[in-house]
Amino acid sequence: MSVASSLWLDGKPADALALPDRGLDFGDGIFETLLLHSGRPLFADLHLARLARGAAVLSLPVALPLVEEHLAIASQAAQNQRWSALRLTLTRGAGPRGYTPPGNPQPRIVMQLTPLSRACDEPGTPAVVGLPAHRLSEQPALAGIKHLNRLDQVMAAQQVQRMGCEEGVMLNQAGDVISLIAGNLFLVTGDRMITPLLEGAGVNGTRRSLVINEWAVRAGLVASEETISLQQVASADECFYTNALFGLRAIGECGGASWSAHPVADQLFTYYREALH
Amino acid sequence: MSVASSLWLDGKPADALALPDRGLDFGDGIFETLLLHSGRPLFADLHLARLARGAAVLSLPVALPLVEEHLAIASQAAQNQRWSALRLTLTRGAGPRGYTPPGNPQPRIVMQLTPLSRACDEPGTPAVVGLPAHRLSEQPALAGIKHLNRLDQVMAAQQVQRMGCEEGVMLNQAGDVISLIAGNLFLVTGDRMITPLLEGAGVNGTRRSLVINEWAVRAGLVASEETISLQQVASADECFYTNALFGLRAIGECGGASWSAHPVADQLFTYYREALH
Repeated sequence: MSVASSLWLDGKPADALALPDRGLDFGDGIFETLLLHSGRPLFADLHLARLARGAAVLSLPVALPLVEEHLAIASQAAQNQRWSALRLTLTRGAGPRGYTPPGNPQPRIVMQLTPLSRACDEPGTPAVVGLPAHRLSEQPALAGIKHLNRLDQVMAAQQVQRMGCEEGVMLNQAGDVISLIAGNLFLVTGDRMITPLLEGAGVNGTRRSLVINEWAVRAGLVASEETISLQQVASADECFYTNALFGLRAIGECGGASWSAHPVADQLFTYYREALH
Repeated sequence: MSVASSLWLDGKPADALALPDRGLDFGDGIFETLLLHSGRPLFADLHLARLARGAAVLSLPVALPLVEEHLAIASQAAQNQRWSALRLTLTRGAGPRGYTPPGNPQPRIVMQLTPLSRACDEPGTPAVVGLPAHRLSEQPALAGIKHLNRLDQVMAAQQVQRMGCEEGVMLNQAGDVISLIAGNLFLVTGDRMITPLLEGAGVNGTRRSLVINEWAVRAGLVASEETISLQQVASADECFYTNALFGLRAIGECGGASWSAHPVADQLFTYYREALH
């Protein structure tokens, strides 16, 4: 179903980005994708904290109270929509020719609101996950933050689409598992829960931190960050992934392996659902 | 000196990019920076060939005759300007939310023309080159092409600016020398000329290929691609770098080392100057 979306540039309704902009020229910026419930952005504090970390890494001046003002604008526009996705992009704005950032950048905020037709407080169907050939770039200096250089995800998404899969496992250059294309991966084996270390690649997901710090704990599990191989994925009792729009979603198939029951994902989803309402 | 620039979107004068655009959202696109001499784009065939290679890697449909039509528009606008820089950006255009590219993308072409005040047929002053802490991402699948994911260059440019340098040596994650921030590096030692292999990072420069395939040959030198260490840079008889705007520029200082004579760079620049006129 095609749905309309709404756009703002620097808090004003807009359908275009002033040029030049370093976000377009170099991917010089960061973004967040927030889930809105009747207009209310969920876990906004976690998104704002990651935005601030990303801005610090890029030496991008950002005033969080200003970002919150922008969020309030989108929030109001979305209040009659049960579920919507808000992408908030912060770029370094205009600049002279060349890579060197201007001394006094005027960052720009682009927001795009998209209504979602799925009931986001219901678990998604277990995901069919492929293994794209494209691997993540190795870059410890930018790992964890949600910057605008996302060609790795685009390449991989293109490949899994051709494979008829909904998602894909992203490996790093060494062949270790880092994440899915648009989410963080968790494996459960016995009473152990593990998720990949994100030292050289990957994004520190907001829901990833909720699983590690809150929901796993509540379920009596300890989620630890480790180097993870594809073999470990195939032999896990259960796999699920997290992102802002699904919250937490079971994995039904991954490569040659498949799982028909997801008791831990089901249990953690109930905690997630509580947090939504 | 501040100079005005001109912008086009899809061949029409514009000051903004229609949103959404995957170039902004993910850096999903490629670009070229061309030097124009009285409006004439120099080595346009090499730029178009790299654009086509980049488009093939990203599975981005691009009609080169259309790109040439756009170039002609900028060319005409620049004809009264002795030297100018034209940045041509090709994005995958609009798309629905998420990383997966649309099945039938409508790429967009953004052009930005900037007059240059420097006489580009004169050699630049020998460059002062620093060593930024930021290293290039390791990504063999995207090495060589000139895509829009350029945060590595932005991070490094920011660092060398703080160091008071004009350029910086980019190392890969393993610590091998790959390039400068905005140019390809060549070392001359005795009768040997070497330049870094670009297998895991870097951009296949248009002037780099001219040095390797034409100018070095004409000077009786063989330029070979090798794995290069910082120690090799420091102990070279002479270093220079290439890019579209300088053509070929001697390096005066790099890290702790310095060079006062650049006979090979001087000689190759004469070949470059011939090609300009």
